[in-house]
Amino acid sequence: MRCLCASSIPLVLAGIGLGAALAAGDDAALSDDTESCLACHATLNPGIVADWRKSLHARVTPGEALKKDELERRISVVKVPDNLANVAVGCAECHNLSPEKHRDTFDHADYKVHVVVTPKDCATCHAVEVKEYGQNLMSHAYGNLKNNPVYHSLVDSATGVQSFENMRTSVSPPDAETNADACFHCHGTAIEVEALKSRETALGEMEFPVLRGWPNQGVGRLNPDGSMGSCTSCHTRHRFSIEMARKPYTCSQCHKGPDVPAYKVYTVSKHGNIFSSMGGNWDFDAVPWVVGDDFTAPTCATCHVSLIANGDGEVVAGRTHRMNERLPWRIFGLIYAHPHPKSPDTTIIRNKAGLPLPTELTGEPAADFLIDAKEQEKRRTAMQNVCLACHGQGWVEGQFARFENTIETTNKMTQAATKIMIAAWEKGAAKGLAQNDSIFNEAIEKKWVEQWLFFANSTRFASAMMGADYGAFANGRWYLSKNIQEMADWLRFKLGGMEVQKKE
Amino acid sequence: MRCLCASSIPLVLAGIGLGAALAAGDDAALSDDTESCLACHATLNPGIVADWRKSLHARVTPGEALKKDELERRISVVKVPDNLANVAVGCAECHNLSPEKHRDTFDHADYKVHVVVTPKDCATCHAVEVKEYGQNLMSHAYGNLKNNPVYHSLVDSATGVQSFENMRTSVSPPDAETNADACFHCHGTAIEVEALKSRETALGEMEFPVLRGWPNQGVGRLNPDGSMGSCTSCHTRHRFSIEMARKPYTCSQCHKGPDVPAYKVYTVSKHGNIFSSMGGNWDFDAVPWVVGDDFTAPTCATCHVSLIANGDGEVVAGRTHRMNERLPWRIFGLIYAHPHPKSPDTTIIRNKAGLPLPTELTGEPAADFLIDAKEQEKRRTAMQNVCLACHGQGWVEGQFARFENTIETTNKMTQAATKIMIAAWEKGAAKGLAQNDSIFNEAIEKKWVEQWLFFANSTRFASAMMGADYGAFANGRWYLSKNIQEMADWLRFKLGGMEVQKKE
Amino acid sequence: MRCLCASSIPLVLAGIGLGAALAAGDDAALSDDTESCLACHATLNPGIVADWRKSLHARVTPGEALKKDELERRISVVKVPDNLANVAVGCAECHNLSPEKHRDTFDHADYKVHVVVTPKDCATCHAVEVKEYGQNLMSHAYGNLKNNPVYHSLVDSATGVQSFENMRTSVSPPDAETNADACFHCHGTAIEVEALKSRETALGEMEFPVLRGWPNQGVGRLNPDGSMGSCTSCHTRHRFSIEMARKPYTCSQCHKGPDVPAYKVYTVSKHGNIFSSMGGNWDFDAVPWVVGDDFTAPTCATCHVSLIANGDGEVVAGRTHRMNERLPWRIFGLIYAHPHPKSPDTTIIRNKAGLPLPTELTGEPAADFLIDAKEQEKRRTAMQNVCLACHGQGWVEGQFARFENTIETTNKMTQAATKIMIAAWEKGAAKGLAQNDSIFNEAIEKKWVEQWLFFANSTRFASAMMGADYGAFANGRWYLSKNIQEMADWLRFKLGGMEVQKKE
Repeated sequence: MRCLCASSIPLVLAGIGLGAALAAGDDAALSDDTESCLACHATLNPGIVADWRKSLHARVTPGEALKKDELERRISVVKVPDNLANVAVGCAECHNLSPEKHRDTFDHADYKVHVVVTPKDCATCHAVEVKEYGQNLMSHAYGNLKNNPVYHSLVDSATGVQSFENMRTSVSPPDAETNADACFHCHGTAIEVEALKSRETALGEMEFPVLRGWPNQGVGRLNPDGSMGSCTSCHTRHRFSIEMARKPYTCSQCHKGPDVPAYKVYTVSKHGNIFSSMGGNWDFDAVPWVVGDDFTAPTCATCHVSLIANGDGEVVAGRTHRMNERLPWRIFGLIYAHPHPKSPDTTIIRNKAGLPLPTELTGEPAADFLIDAKEQEKRRTAMQNVCLACHGQGWVEGQFARFENTIETTNKMTQAATKIMIAAWEKGAAKGLAQNDSIFNEAIEKKWVEQWLFFANSTRFASAMMGADYGAFANGRWYLSKNIQEMADWLRFKLGGMEVQKKE
Repeated sequence: MRCLCASSIPLVLAGIGLGAALAAGDDAALSDDTESCLACHATLNPGIVADWRKSLHARVTPGEALKKDELERRISVVKVPDNLANVAVGCAECHNLSPEKHRDTFDHADYKVHVVVTPKDCATCHAVEVKEYGQNLMSHAYGNLKNNPVYHSLVDSATGVQSFENMRTSVSPPDAETNADACFHCHGTAIEVEALKSRETALGEMEFPVLRGWPNQGVGRLNPDGSMGSCTSCHTRHRFSIEMARKPYTCSQCHKGPDVPAYKVYTVSKHGNIFSSMGGNWDFDAVPWVVGDDFTAPTCATCHVSLIANGDGEVVAGRTHRMNERLPWRIFGLIYAHPHPKSPDTTIIRNKAGLPLPTELTGEPAADFLIDAKEQEKRRTAMQNVCLACHGQGWVEGQFARFENTIETTNKMTQAATKIMIAAWEKGAAKGLAQNDSIFNEAIEKKWVEQWLFFANSTRFASAMMGADYGAFANGRWYLSKNIQEMADWLRFKLGGMEVQKKE
Repeated sequence: MRCLCASSIPLVLAGIGLGAALAAGDDAALSDDTESCLACHATLNPGIVADWRKSLHARVTPGEALKKDELERRISVVKVPDNLANVAVGCAECHNLSPEKHRDTFDHADYKVHVVVTPKDCATCHAVEVKEYGQNLMSHAYGNLKNNPVYHSLVDSATGVQSFENMRTSVSPPDAETNADACFHCHGTAIEVEALKSRETALGEMEFPVLRGWPNQGVGRLNPDGSMGSCTSCHTRHRFSIEMARKPYTCSQCHKGPDVPAYKVYTVSKHGNIFSSMGGNWDFDAVPWVVGDDFTAPTCATCHVSLIANGDGEVVAGRTHRMNERLPWRIFGLIYAHPHPKSPDTTIIRNKAGLPLPTELTGEPAADFLIDAKEQEKRRTAMQNVCLACHGQGWVEGQFARFENTIETTNKMTQAATKIMIAAWEKGAAKGLAQNDSIFNEAIEKKWVEQWLFFANSTRFASAMMGADYGAFANGRWYLSKNIQEMADWLRFKLGGMEVQKKE
């Protein structure tokens, strides 16, 4: 292998290189390995290198970071390995870490490099966050979708390729690229090494791994080191900033669609309005994040993740990367809203009917697999403590009563639609489980799906976050009620037609 | 009642407290009463207290505010009560004002406090704005929806809970919390004191009012002092800034849905683009607001509310909180667009058919209740004066001719859909007024509603504000034309089926 | 003609006027002619004048601009006319240029002024950009829509006014104002002088041209000097900034609707998130635009238009106003996605069936009129060079493979829907070309249109820009699959009904 930029490497190693120059400012010293990376990649990929240079990783060593007061500390181990403590967190510190554990490690200019940096790598300094995140539904988003036959059949029915021959439609399952381009873009792909491939580069011919499922930054990505998730889903590489993760745009990457319109709801809420109007002057980088001083309305992170303090340095809410700690309910209905699942692995759930669903088709919760009322109360209180930093107790109680009433009424609207669907299956107007058929592949079944996946969800998110438009006309109650009437009309039409046929 | 923080109150009263410290900066002196509030609430609710500290209310006394030149003045009375003139507008100045007039007043740490601050409270300093706002449709938004039987039936049909039994759907009217969570979130709730409730607090057991309809900041809220509206709908507490009210995000809280997509239309208009691209450098806090200097494209407030001046200090448009002063038309069709109503109370309107609607079902305006052509011309001119600050007369005339043509064509598209609906009622394909049935509760009726409430409205907003996407494919003309064809198809299908049944 | 502000003109001409004052700052000297304009219009239209004063046009003369290093230069001629070289680009320099070539030129206060400044005017200094833009689909957007009978019939069917009489709907073609308010708002109108009209002004009675099709800033506007397009579509008057054109809000004016949701897709992509979260600190005005330094994620302009350099001053991608230089595919399906057309004038295209469409109804490309695989590869490489500034080769290849797979699968989903439509036409369930009927005017045909115009397009844009929501539930694959099933259901229903009728 020729090394076209070899001539610059000795310069770098001699200490007259890029790293030394950087260290002169307020940047941290770079490791020799990272300096080697930069010798080529600063020119090859100027965008990410410049982005990283602006990051805390480039400016503060883990050793310095450990010296901060506990409340201000951004790393959660008590000690970092000696070889990492006093250099910036550069290219090599992550991409060359524990090469033996990463199946995508390859030989590259005398280094063993892996492409996909994983939560296990990040845990070197951020162990608590990685552990908490592992207890999250999000870290299990790949398997929860892929390995649940009910949900999987929804995926296939929605994203498979259809054809029309002899007056009938048929569907073939989605290929891997389609999956990666649709549902698993957010849920995460399974990254696997397919082959090594030679490529002519500025440094001559080099070998690189070809990765299946790549690129992907989904929240439940299966990584080549066996870990689940991707910290860069929210802490976008290569800045890895707390600022981006705290801004709602990050959440909007996956939480804006009609199934889970959290971001849209937020934007029309009073909170979202304050953020949009006044957020330009807030400090999104402060740790702890001081309510009133650093920000005057919550973003997604405020209520669900961040360490919040008041002006006296007292903790209002602790940092958690297990986002369900403040969530008594799972308002994303499958098919009804229900108490939050106990385990982040929802494939273990079985309802009384034996289906891997957290409720019966009637709405009754599969209680064994869901948190109980006491745990719900604990989580409700945890969330309310955030509210109380700005709102009175009466305000907060009123809001929660209204929200939980909406959970109840939207579940009823799901129930009415489901009863119509069950009648259709029973009377032969559609084919369901009894006929060994998917319950998501007919037009009427997709109409039913929209009732709970789009309209009931939207209405509940709107209620939870006070963005009422999405609970009224924008995919909210208007559609909940219209959809039921259209489903009932369809069923009567269909049964009428079957009646006529029978007579003939 | 124990008072756990009583020990701090004497300190505050002795003048060594928070208020004195604040006054040392550029903040105004605080009243003793407000200092007492802050002694506890700065710790209990740090978010809102910090927010308020950044407000003009905390930094300028009404007495100082009165000294400003008329064009720069933000308060509209000639004199404020003596006890309020020389202290900051703090907690007590609003929440303890005229306790005898507020039904939600309660005894709280030796004070008589009310939770819900109302336009009448704000009128102490901002009398003109409150008066103008009272002449607005918005201040009447509660009653106009609740007390108009036609609109009320639309609400019930859209937000009531439905069930499906014996192959038929039925609907029960929405409960109070659902109303507050949906339509009345924006229209406003009726706030009433339900009870007093004891609660254990940091200061021991205390009694607080439990309020029905709370929380709410809807524009037509019925307050416990009998007033209508909520200034904090737009001037969000506790910053109460003119900046937020001038930014379009505030309007988007209620004006983004498919029924009234003003904000969405704005964002794709040239004006919205300029705001989004360049607004970061504008001065949203200047009074008067100087076109060209402080901003280079209008936001919602520019055209509808704000006091606009040119660089020579001449008034381009006067401030008004009666937003219809520059609105010749009401383009929010009910069911047709029509000249603006004379009275903000639209429940008094009766068309020739005796319905409380501003037009006949044919489109003919209920002229007695609507402004005449002369008043329309006056308002059109008032609006055009704003346009002319940046556009030539030919540009403005062209735009208005195009807009008024769109009012006409969208009304025709509403008329075609309505004729189909009337045929359906007459021929028994649907049940309407003649059958004593709601005209909004069947699937086909909801399809008709979308014609005027979503698609015609969207198209007109798009035309008025030049955000053409919403008049083309995004809920615009595409859907207007598709919907008519689907309604006509449905009617032919239905009548064909009835024909078949009859024969049998 | 009286001239009310005549008294101020001599002052201006005497050099004590506004222009001289401006030149004292960092503004360029103004021509006498522009000073004359400003003498009145600074007062009459303060907004645009103040906006222009902030522009580079007001602050740098073409002569100075020519002296910049080539990479930093913003004008693309080697020489500007002598009379323009040393004065600011003011009102007169554009509106009074080559009066004999503009049919909208009129006599105005002793000047010959034209209202509509055109690309030909701009080419005085920006000749290369105007030439490139002329090779763009966008510059031909008027004719490509108006003069293609298939597309034109889609316009008429979507925006014409419908009526309902005797149980049948009928449609009349859209009037000129409706066209200008809908499709041609973005595509551009044909601007023509209708008449001269007298108007009382502050300067007495004056004559002004009345323009048909005005106002409009569509990308393919037909101008009174025979040119096509409007530079102010993106470089909004009168600031004409590169900053606005580089921000995605500008593109969103026309690229946000369901037919072409590029902006929406961008906002939920990682790139869009980085822009929204961190873009407040970027330099949108730098030329060249340095990746990593000036910005850390692409906006629309980065990938499609801008001159991008790395930190060493090396060009990553050249500036081009022929946006298709980096576009191997046209993913906006008509009705299928296909290799990009060779000519920006798409009215010359004929498929084998003789229709002016770039593919057959089966999906086969009309290859003679489209670029070949070699040209596609060249354009693919040009685009990938931009990607590589931040991403590795494996990442980029993976993304393109996935994207081109999505082109294929979405074309198949369009094909299935088209086969259903063809069956409907053949079996008499709908009326198509064989019956000399529009293929867009029936409800089922509009459903078919949505398959390719909304859902397939959305899915492809989502794939291209990695904003997966729009390829999943938000107008993406969910709707692609649901729509096919609904179309097939409809066809079976319809044919069943026809069967019954036949028997009777």
